[in-house]
Amino acid sequence: MSVEARIEQALKAALAPVVSPPKLAAALPYAVFPGGARVRPTILLSVALACGDDRPDLSDAAAASLELIHCASLVHDDLPAFDDADTRRGKATVHRAYSEPLAVLAGDSLIVLAFDTISRAAGLAPDRGLALVSTLATRTGAPLGICAGQAWESEQSINLSDYHRAKTGALFIAATRMGAISAGHDPEPWEELGARIGEAFQVADDLKDALQTEAETGKPVGQDAAHMRPNAVARLGVAGAMAHMQNILAGAISSIPSCPGEAHLAQLVTAYARRLTGQPATRPA
Amino acid sequence: MSVEARIEQALKAALAPVVSPPKLAAALPYAVFPGGARVRPTILLSVALACGDDRPDLSDAAAASLELIHCASLVHDDLPAFDDADTRRGKATVHRAYSEPLAVLAGDSLIVLAFDTISRAAGLAPDRGLALVSTLATRTGAPLGICAGQAWESEQSINLSDYHRAKTGALFIAATRMGAISAGHDPEPWEELGARIGEAFQVADDLKDALQTEAETGKPVGQDAAHMRPNAVARLGVAGAMAHMQNILAGAISSIPSCPGEAHLAQLVTAYARRLTGQPATRPA
Repeated sequence: MSVEARIEQALKAALAPVVSPPKLAAALPYAVFPGGARVRPTILLSVALACGDDRPDLSDAAAASLELIHCASLVHDDLPAFDDADTRRGKATVHRAYSEPLAVLAGDSLIVLAFDTISRAAGLAPDRGLALVSTLATRTGAPLGICAGQAWESEQSINLSDYHRAKTGALFIAATRMGAISAGHDPEPWEELGARIGEAFQVADDLKDALQTEAETGKPVGQDAAHMRPNAVARLGVAGAMAHMQNILAGAISSIPSCPGEAHLAQLVTAYARRLTGQPATRPA
Repeated sequence: MSVEARIEQALKAALAPVVSPPKLAAALPYAVFPGGARVRPTILLSVALACGDDRPDLSDAAAASLELIHCASLVHDDLPAFDDADTRRGKATVHRAYSEPLAVLAGDSLIVLAFDTISRAAGLAPDRGLALVSTLATRTGAPLGICAGQAWESEQSINLSDYHRAKTGALFIAATRMGAISAGHDPEPWEELGARIGEAFQVADDLKDALQTEAETGKPVGQDAAHMRPNAVARLGVAGAMAHMQNILAGAISSIPSCPGEAHLAQLVTAYARRLTGQPATRPA
């Protein structure tokens, strides 16, 4: 089965037990399907495959749990108290479609479901399961996770490096670490790959926010300028930000640890770089 | 060390790693200290002690995790989109003291921290750790947890039994089940005790909401009537609700499974009943 199909199937399985109350039970799949590019679970499964993927049930559950956290963060970030967004992925945001209380509860429920999904799959490998719970929690909460990243925007003075690493980097670091853990490998050597992909993604997102139209992204643009958030394009210009991203992705490729699937994973990052920049990231000799 | 001291110490230990960003790092302890009666973690530790409490580190972490989820639910329930409460436990609610974005993120972070706390403590007993994660997730999310309970209030037609069991009962069921799991016992026989204490607590809360003043409860009163929520006092009258609660607590005591600490636990529920009603619950012969 393709990685794409595994992710969609795992997400469907994770959501299946939520049958009531009716509106909440409808709001959850609304927030998760149809998805975006599913970048984070794709990276997770790619790393798991590169490490041998000896427990595909567990890596599928890990991939679903990571995407559930990402979807939860989108639902909460779209709330009136944050971005006050009307649209997301080309349709009404959850609070516009269902109400603000249901959006808060849908986000909460998706966070909880993420941990539930790991615990249900971990029966035969409890040590890996607990390491997955711990890693996902660290990269979701505070001080190192996306909650902390979002909360930096409430500070008068932002620690930019902590901000970016937590706001965007955290779930990419979770992706590579959780991929390794799912397959029984040490997650430490995989952190840098996640961090660098996260950095590249942040710069790509800054470029998109600055350059594209709302019709192209499916969500409101110019949000960074409107909310005075730090942005690589404002700092480096368009050409500078593009070159910066290219460098980061080349570094990502050279950071891939020795493993059976190393070459395939390098190809995947290169393809990803091509999609983000229109140019291939070259692998250093 | 007393149960009370164990709970406060475990909560402090759980929150210690959150050092930034500054406002979020301050909002989390603000939401957790000083606490209310800490009823749920007290029940959890009492059940763990009744079962032998052979891994107090794990039962302490479980107790903290359960209280963190309870605190998270209070922060989110107080938000303008729900109760729009100005005060809680005699001081400003988190969104009034810190802002609405920080209240959303504080709730999210506390949920995540709850699962993190279990995973960090479970090293030597990974099977129990995963069962704790799973139980806490089930009683927090949907369809059986407090998120589902709150979401029932967004429905036109409420399933009253599902509503009460999820909204108030869920974390009491979590308390008894998690207490048993922490000590390596089967959680199934403990579910009824949690469910009955939860029912009694709901009736007591209905009585408080109907009868007490805001100064006495430290939070706005008359919220059930204002939000048209189902309430036992409206259904049975004050005397009827009081008698109902008394019956439920007697049933709770008779449901306690055979275990080394059975007698002590029965005393504890009796004391709890006396506090709630002013009269002792009698144990059926």
